[in-house]
Amino acid sequence: MASIFYSRVEALRGLMRENGWDIVVLTGSDPHMSEYPAPRWQQVAWLSGFTGEAGDLVITLDHAGLWTDTRYFIQAVQQLEGSGISLHKMRVPGEVPIPQWIASLGMDEPIIAVDALCQSVEAVDTLQDAVSSAQIIPIPDLLGPLWTERPAVPSSPIITLGEDLCGESREAKLNWLRKWLIRQGADAIFLSALDQIAWLLNVRGSDVAYNPVVISYLLVTLDDAFWFVQKDAFADPDSETAASFDELRADGITIQGYDDVAFTLASLRLDGIDTICLDPATINWSLRDAIEDGDMLPEVLEMPSPIALRKAVKNAVEVEGMREAHLEDGLVMEQFLYWLSRHVGQVNEWEAAAYLGSLRAAVSGYRGDSFQTISAYGPSAALPHYVTPASGSLLLEPHGLYLVDSGGQYLFGTTDITRTVPLGPCTALERKDYTLVLRGHIDLAMAVFPRGTAGCQLDVLAREPLWQARRNFGHGTGHGVGFFLNVHEGPQDIRQNFNNQPLEPGMITSDEPGLYREAMHGIRHENLVLCRPVGDNEFGSWLGFETLTLCHFDTSCLEVSLLTQAERDWLNAYNRRVYELLSPRLAPEVAAWLRDKTIPV
Amino acid sequence: MASIFYSRVEALRGLMRENGWDIVVLTGSDPHMSEYPAPRWQQVAWLSGFTGEAGDLVITLDHAGLWTDTRYFIQAVQQLEGSGISLHKMRVPGEVPIPQWIASLGMDEPIIAVDALCQSVEAVDTLQDAVSSAQIIPIPDLLGPLWTERPAVPSSPIITLGEDLCGESREAKLNWLRKWLIRQGADAIFLSALDQIAWLLNVRGSDVAYNPVVISYLLVTLDDAFWFVQKDAFADPDSETAASFDELRADGITIQGYDDVAFTLASLRLDGIDTICLDPATINWSLRDAIEDGDMLPEVLEMPSPIALRKAVKNAVEVEGMREAHLEDGLVMEQFLYWLSRHVGQVNEWEAAAYLGSLRAAVSGYRGDSFQTISAYGPSAALPHYVTPASGSLLLEPHGLYLVDSGGQYLFGTTDITRTVPLGPCTALERKDYTLVLRGHIDLAMAVFPRGTAGCQLDVLAREPLWQARRNFGHGTGHGVGFFLNVHEGPQDIRQNFNNQPLEPGMITSDEPGLYREAMHGIRHENLVLCRPVGDNEFGSWLGFETLTLCHFDTSCLEVSLLTQAERDWLNAYNRRVYELLSPRLAPEVAAWLRDKTIPV
Repeated sequence: MASIFYSRVEALRGLMRENGWDIVVLTGSDPHMSEYPAPRWQQVAWLSGFTGEAGDLVITLDHAGLWTDTRYFIQAVQQLEGSGISLHKMRVPGEVPIPQWIASLGMDEPIIAVDALCQSVEAVDTLQDAVSSAQIIPIPDLLGPLWTERPAVPSSPIITLGEDLCGESREAKLNWLRKWLIRQGADAIFLSALDQIAWLLNVRGSDVAYNPVVISYLLVTLDDAFWFVQKDAFADPDSETAASFDELRADGITIQGYDDVAFTLASLRLDGIDTICLDPATINWSLRDAIEDGDMLPEVLEMPSPIALRKAVKNAVEVEGMREAHLEDGLVMEQFLYWLSRHVGQVNEWEAAAYLGSLRAAVSGYRGDSFQTISAYGPSAALPHYVTPASGSLLLEPHGLYLVDSGGQYLFGTTDITRTVPLGPCTALERKDYTLVLRGHIDLAMAVFPRGTAGCQLDVLAREPLWQARRNFGHGTGHGVGFFLNVHEGPQDIRQNFNNQPLEPGMITSDEPGLYREAMHGIRHENLVLCRPVGDNEFGSWLGFETLTLCHFDTSCLEVSLLTQAERDWLNAYNRRVYELLSPRLAPEVAAWLRDKTIPV
Repeated sequence: MASIFYSRVEALRGLMRENGWDIVVLTGSDPHMSEYPAPRWQQVAWLSGFTGEAGDLVITLDHAGLWTDTRYFIQAVQQLEGSGISLHKMRVPGEVPIPQWIASLGMDEPIIAVDALCQSVEAVDTLQDAVSSAQIIPIPDLLGPLWTERPAVPSSPIITLGEDLCGESREAKLNWLRKWLIRQGADAIFLSALDQIAWLLNVRGSDVAYNPVVISYLLVTLDDAFWFVQKDAFADPDSETAASFDELRADGITIQGYDDVAFTLASLRLDGIDTICLDPATINWSLRDAIEDGDMLPEVLEMPSPIALRKAVKNAVEVEGMREAHLEDGLVMEQFLYWLSRHVGQVNEWEAAAYLGSLRAAVSGYRGDSFQTISAYGPSAALPHYVTPASGSLLLEPHGLYLVDSGGQYLFGTTDITRTVPLGPCTALERKDYTLVLRGHIDLAMAVFPRGTAGCQLDVLAREPLWQARRNFGHGTGHGVGFFLNVHEGPQDIRQNFNNQPLEPGMITSDEPGLYREAMHGIRHENLVLCRPVGDNEFGSWLGFETLTLCHFDTSCLEVSLLTQAERDWLNAYNRRVYELLSPRLAPEVAAWLRDKTIPV
């Protein structure tokens, strides 16, 4: 039966015929190339019904396709039913990405319309390279004429962070950025990445789910800074937002309307800007177009923004805040795990997630979760990105493994933790899998490495214990984590993919190997680790990790004989540290339970 | 005091003034971009006196510089004395490579003469990119007018290998290459890499020290193959070489003179070749120039030759040959180590190397060493590329560590082995260093990894035991090894540097972590390992290593307590295998000694 999405695709085809477009490409991104788009830009969901986090659509007059990866195949098949849209599989052998698929149609000089606001310059360049004869037309808000009930650009309250919380004033950050501009021989930099803007201005909002950012653009020149942000936010003069704007204006930031950005970019030369830096990975095509539409073009320097790296290297105040956040989060987690041990057999995945959320929400300084909690029992956990359903989620039974991956946004830091918990007797396979994943986690946590080492050069440490047993996991081992900012940030990571960004002291990254067996169980052990110096000598300058996360690893389903002595020592020391730091602030019955859970193995 | 090299540089400057050249660049390579040049192309040594394996010269009218890396700093300073040539250090922080150094001179449109025969297309392109205003002039045999006593192009006897030795006929190899050409849409491929030519034609020579290759070029078309090789080789109709030529002709290979190659390349279109594949990393600039000088240019496809990868993946006969070579070489090594144990205090480094060489030379099928033996006692071994001097080498005293790195070329395979041997009591530091390097060696040897894994993703396994103790080594962990061919070959390696070539079943690579303490000692433990399948399951297709090298690791200076149980098990199993395989073919007193040396720890 044809769904509402079928009608929407047909309506879009009507628009295509009217305008003479052969192909429409729509991405699941927003104008800032954010990981999660706000509802206004959930165009893929509106047009196709597919709600996964990664999905792009291509519509021709006789075909409609959704491109997504392994994580979402089952979900996509269900959600696309009746839409007339076919699934194109990515991250599989023989995958055909969108540019190559369009090229394979062999159309002569096709006219391709793309939503120019939600396509990065890089993405459009890649498409043009693959289909050189194509005429690519940028249409900002392409679905506008059809999507009449479209949500507005979000405009949540904006707060500022003082130096006491974030360690560096916005003046100091702007001074640093301007010195960088002078070294590049540039007059200005234009920023669209929301977390970079939030970091630079020491502002936070809640315009995007789980990401405490403000939908906005920022233009920084050698003398001025222009922040383009939703006008709605100006409304109430007594609001927190108005106070934030006043503080920013006092620091020399000019507040402008979000929609004024294109006009400003089109007249840069009139404003005395001859040379401007842009990051082609984060600026959308519509805005680069605006710059190039001006009468007198400035010189454009396409380069990565320097903010991503600077932001990833936390300062001393941020590090202290992150330690505090992990202490608070650890107390939450231990209370949750204690409660869980008392409610096995009585609660389901959804209820457990809700209870964990309520514990976090009670922490002073809590501003929300850092991502949607994954609460997954048994076979549910075999899906690394399982979405716990509000109704019909599994009962937590008194056997096997329960996985909970969650995190909080606090005024003083961001957390991300996964624990896999035996709820009762476990099979030999569950025990061995649990132990091998923990070995990988520990081996990476113990790593020592010379300055200059990139995460991809360490990744194998977390995998080799699994590889020895011919087991593996299909996701990265570690991602960067922001300071009261996005739970996923670059530029560093710990993955198989080559990324030459060295790990630097002050960077915070997750350490989260896993193992997933379809219809059986899933295991992941995740802590956040802080990169820090561990001594210099004639062989180099040495770095290692300090584990920030504070929550014991359950030893009851461990195959202790599989651990090396060094791994066992690490585990015992870690569990002891967790008990010593947390128990004074836990209720006596929880502290007593934790003491038992952290007896050395 | 000015040396003879000072006069030679001055004579070159005379030539520069005559021709109006501002700068001359000379590399330490040959027309085939070989690792070791034959004497004819040792231009750097002739002009500067520097004999290290890596060195390039830049001469201007008022400066002369030698670029070399850390391995050769001490040697370069000594050898350059009196030449007026300055040392430019590479592989150090702040290094300034030749293109950047020339650019930094700020000369306007400099005229740079390069020896076009001994510069790869890639190297000249890099220079042109860095100094865009430069006019680069290709001068084949640039030093010709000055170097009157220059050695001839070598022309050693040529042998052929039958399928019984190398596992695949040249017809089969040529058929495979021609199918590859058709897939590329090309009519021909031009090869200059000597080991690729030797592999493809199943020929071997000894034109280059340690590399059993024939100085030659090869042009393969869809129907023909033209081998350009020294005419001297045609001389004696009864020679081994003449028989080899007859065999090749019978297989459809046309033998042509080495110097005819440029003419042939200039007239490709006349010969019906419209599209030709070239590898810019191995073809010299002079020959690409020849192609482009023709009246009717063929289309040139610049791409890596497919032979490097195919050659690196050994077939079953080659693998069997390599196993046999390592059995023979292991017998040599154990006899040597037994002899050494009886001659400590009586022989020096040079005499030990000579004795080892005599043992290898006695093996049936021995064709030479695979590189110059490094025989280094105590502080000598702190130089990873120590050149043992014929006179004045150190006495092997009955204490501390002796390092011997050597290998053989046999008709049935190539070996490369390093053992570090305690000659008596060792210091605690020597024992710990010895043990940690062996842990790194073992951890890499034990690795299991999924298909698609590259060596750089495994490298850390060999380093982490050292890194844990804040120690490191400055060279790669592993290089590819040819089958009765070059002891260093690509495309795979095991290093920190990113190289996305996966390790594939049939590849043979060294496993050789080390540790070097200036003026104290040097340690390296090296075996060759064969990549091979170790099982498939739902998590992937798994690979691991089989150790080919057969020679015990000395346990007498081991700190056994530092090993994990798995490492200890590996070591005991390896030493037991060595004893079991070698002892039946060793003299009784050597076998008895080896039994004692391989008692489990």
